Amino acid sequence: MNTNSNIVERLATLVGAADLLTDPSDMEPFLVDWRQRLRGNARCVVLPRSTEQVSAVVAACAEAGVPIVPQGGNTGLCGGATPGAGDLPVVVGLRRMNRIRAIDRENNTITVEAGCILKQVQDAAAEADRLFPLSLGAEGSCQIGGNLSTNAGGVHVLRYGNTRELTLGLEVVLPDGRIWNGLRGLRKDNTGYDLKQLFVGAEGTLGIITAAVLKLFPVPQATVTGWVGVESPAAAVRLLDSMQASLGPRLVAFELMADLPLQMALAHSDGAQPPLASAHPWHVLVELADSGDEDDLQELVLDVLEAASEAGGVADAALAQNIEQSREFWHLRETIPEGQTRTGYSIKHDISVPISRIPEFLDRGAQALAKAIPGIRIVPFGHLGDGNLHYNVTRPVEMTDGDFAAKTPDVNRIVHELVHEFHGSISAEHGLGQVKRDEAARYKSQVELDLMRAVKRAFDPAGIMNPGKILAGT
Amino acid sequence: MNTNSNIVERLATLVGAADLLTDPSDMEPFLVDWRQRLRGNARCVVLPRSTEQVSAVVAACAEAGVPIVPQGGNTGLCGGATPGAGDLPVVVGLRRMNRIRAIDRENNTITVEAGCILKQVQDAAAEADRLFPLSLGAEGSCQIGGNLSTNAGGVHVLRYGNTRELTLGLEVVLPDGRIWNGLRGLRKDNTGYDLKQLFVGAEGTLGIITAAVLKLFPVPQATVTGWVGVESPAAAVRLLDSMQASLGPRLVAFELMADLPLQMALAHSDGAQPPLASAHPWHVLVELADSGDEDDLQELVLDVLEAASEAGGVADAALAQNIEQSREFWHLRETIPEGQTRTGYSIKHDISVPISRIPEFLDRGAQALAKAIPGIRIVPFGHLGDGNLHYNVTRPVEMTDGDFAAKTPDVNRIVHELVHEFHGSISAEHGLGQVKRDEAARYKSQVELDLMRAVKRAFDPAGIMNPGKILAGT
Repeated sequence: MNTNSNIVERLATLVGAADLLTDPSDMEPFLVDWRQRLRGNARCVVLPRSTEQVSAVVAACAEAGVPIVPQGGNTGLCGGATPGAGDLPVVVGLRRMNRIRAIDRENNTITVEAGCILKQVQDAAAEADRLFPLSLGAEGSCQIGGNLSTNAGGVHVLRYGNTRELTLGLEVVLPDGRIWNGLRGLRKDNTGYDLKQLFVGAEGTLGIITAAVLKLFPVPQATVTGWVGVESPAAAVRLLDSMQASLGPRLVAFELMADLPLQMALAHSDGAQPPLASAHPWHVLVELADSGDEDDLQELVLDVLEAASEAGGVADAALAQNIEQSREFWHLRETIPEGQTRTGYSIKHDISVPISRIPEFLDRGAQALAKAIPGIRIVPFGHLGDGNLHYNVTRPVEMTDGDFAAKTPDVNRIVHELVHEFHGSISAEHGLGQVKRDEAARYKSQVELDLMRAVKRAFDPAGIMNPGKILAGT
Repeated sequence: MNTNSNIVERLATLVGAADLLTDPSDMEPFLVDWRQRLRGNARCVVLPRSTEQVSAVVAACAEAGVPIVPQGGNTGLCGGATPGAGDLPVVVGLRRMNRIRAIDRENNTITVEAGCILKQVQDAAAEADRLFPLSLGAEGSCQIGGNLSTNAGGVHVLRYGNTRELTLGLEVVLPDGRIWNGLRGLRKDNTGYDLKQLFVGAEGTLGIITAAVLKLFPVPQATVTGWVGVESPAAAVRLLDSMQASLGPRLVAFELMADLPLQMALAHSDGAQPPLASAHPWHVLVELADSGDEDDLQELVLDVLEAASEAGGVADAALAQNIEQSREFWHLRETIPEGQTRTGYSIKHDISVPISRIPEFLDRGAQALAKAIPGIRIVPFGHLGDGNLHYNVTRPVEMTDGDFAAKTPDVNRIVHELVHEFHGSISAEHGLGQVKRDEAARYKSQVELDLMRAVKRAFDPAGIMNPGKILAGT
């Protein structure tokens, strides 16, 4: 039997000394979260190279009663992969399990190990003339196991769904070390409870995802990127509706941003020009894709934009004329977080409400926040097509960062109460981790919390798997 | 405290005497399955009119330790909604909970009660100029609660997904009578375990779904239905691949059938004509939809079919020239089960394998079955686009129905062993119920069965909810 004290030696025999880190400077990158706001501690970091090694590591930890924190690319925004401040856990990093195990073109599936970088999965699909559509800012460093464990969203959810919808099968090491092989590449399988659904989005609290079978799609032959100036969020919702009616699934992305986030991005993008010469209070970035000819698609999009303009609310629009211009449009959208960071301390929210209620939500939020903190700068942007906004706020010009940071609980309360009133979610695509755990519990019913705890107990009765994440006291 | 003996009286006080059936002839339709192969018994049938009544009924049964069998339209093919032969349960029929609670056009969602007939949901969506895409043979009598509980598939899965993918939120009465309100209309929500995923496809073993928020879509403006004669399943898979590449999500349905099922359908459809004048060993029925002009879509489809024909394997094709002809094509496809029934005793399977392996599966299956039962007639048809075939077999011409029926275990063993070898599913879209429960257990790993049992225990520790369905001894 292992004991707490010799678990590190035991793990070294399982994975080899070269794949086990105990030196503080070696462990450092695994102990601090990406935003550098959270710091934890660990007994050691192990970097297994196979599912069997993960299984052996988990079994040894389970036997010794030592908690485990699974970690992918450590790019999460809620500290789900960062150890907490409590017990000394073993961090299990998946980075060395990064093989593409198989591609089946005719079945449109790819089988990947959890430690594959998202970009690596996209590239492997592209090499096989297929599309893996998951796309988000961190795609060059996040790992697919983390994407699965947080049910990552990103910019193409409107057309292709969240990571959950892209997942056909999983391989998982359970909290007792056993391996569940659910690596099926089937689009229809109704032979009992769909267990993979529990592990997707569980942030490593029910087991460690070691591999997955993911959906692939045909590569679109034509892509059109457009920038549209609109007079209001209501006009943007109407535009979304008419584009969906007229373009159907060609509509791949529909991003809304207020003018302030655009100006912040422009101010911090060397030499970048606004996509439209005219000024607008709100902007929409759209992306469309089709299997056919690019000129045909462009013409179709222009027709829809013209009709929307005649119907009112759409003031001006430009289509990117080449790939470089398309990248510039997207670069502006993606530079908003950095522009915001450089402007002053910001409090960030990742919320969703029914799309139909976005305009009212933005009105009500602006009123309530301005009343509470005069001069507060509201910087809303995000995936309108999914009802998901990064509803961020930056300090008033005259306020210090510290004074504004101190108001975080008040600001969260205002925003999240409103989200709750609108039957929305306080974490649309970032998960709960340790940062939003208690905030989520505040708004969930007792029944729902009871069910979540029942699931946790059923899968991890000893509570060793990523304790304290998602649920308190677990 | 209720006792077993007075539970019926107690339930009558909860729902009213008019909504409680005890007369054998009144109960009869609830006790026999749709295919009339299974018969159970029940203490009584209750027909609650609200979620609160369902909650009260379940709480009373839980207190008295009386098992419950939830039932929708009772059109299932595996006996999931039919009482078993054991204990005397209470059947809870949902048919009187059939309100459309809300439609949100801009959010593209509809909120429905479990007892709504699928057709009613489709019609309510259409009235709001929206599409609810779930479509299957029983749509005029099956209820959406049953569709959710079996994760129903149907003919549009290729484009829109299974019922699971169409579900955003659920309301569920839990096995202790408490109500879980998870009626969210959000496309992104990552605030803990996605509990609704457990209830979808659970066949009423974890709780009773009482209402749901479902996704709606724009109504396609153009639809094209085509019939294609192909030389082999491999040619059909190649055609699927090229249609997906060239037509993307316009491809809504892709159905494969051997010539024998077509001939059976023709023989039992008064005056129906084969769609193609020429004879072919295999046939594909395709449906395409788009937001644009129907002539444009038709031209596009013809181009793709012409290219496929030049590439080889596609022998002939016809596009339906009007709605009536399109209905005739689909009628032939939907008449196959009846044609098969009239031809002689059949043993039916609902299997899926990776699409890439369908041709090999069909080859191997035909060889193995012909060897075991010379003259056996193989009648494969189904949703090739989802890798899902109704792999049915009809008795040899010279064999009696009874002799062939006696061979059911042998035939199932041959087919399911092959499915297992191909990493497929022995129930792609029909669920397990009581009919396929033990067969599924035979092919699942011990780890997977343990996890399923853990889920069942966590949600229904007393085991009163649809006992014996999905899992034995529960």
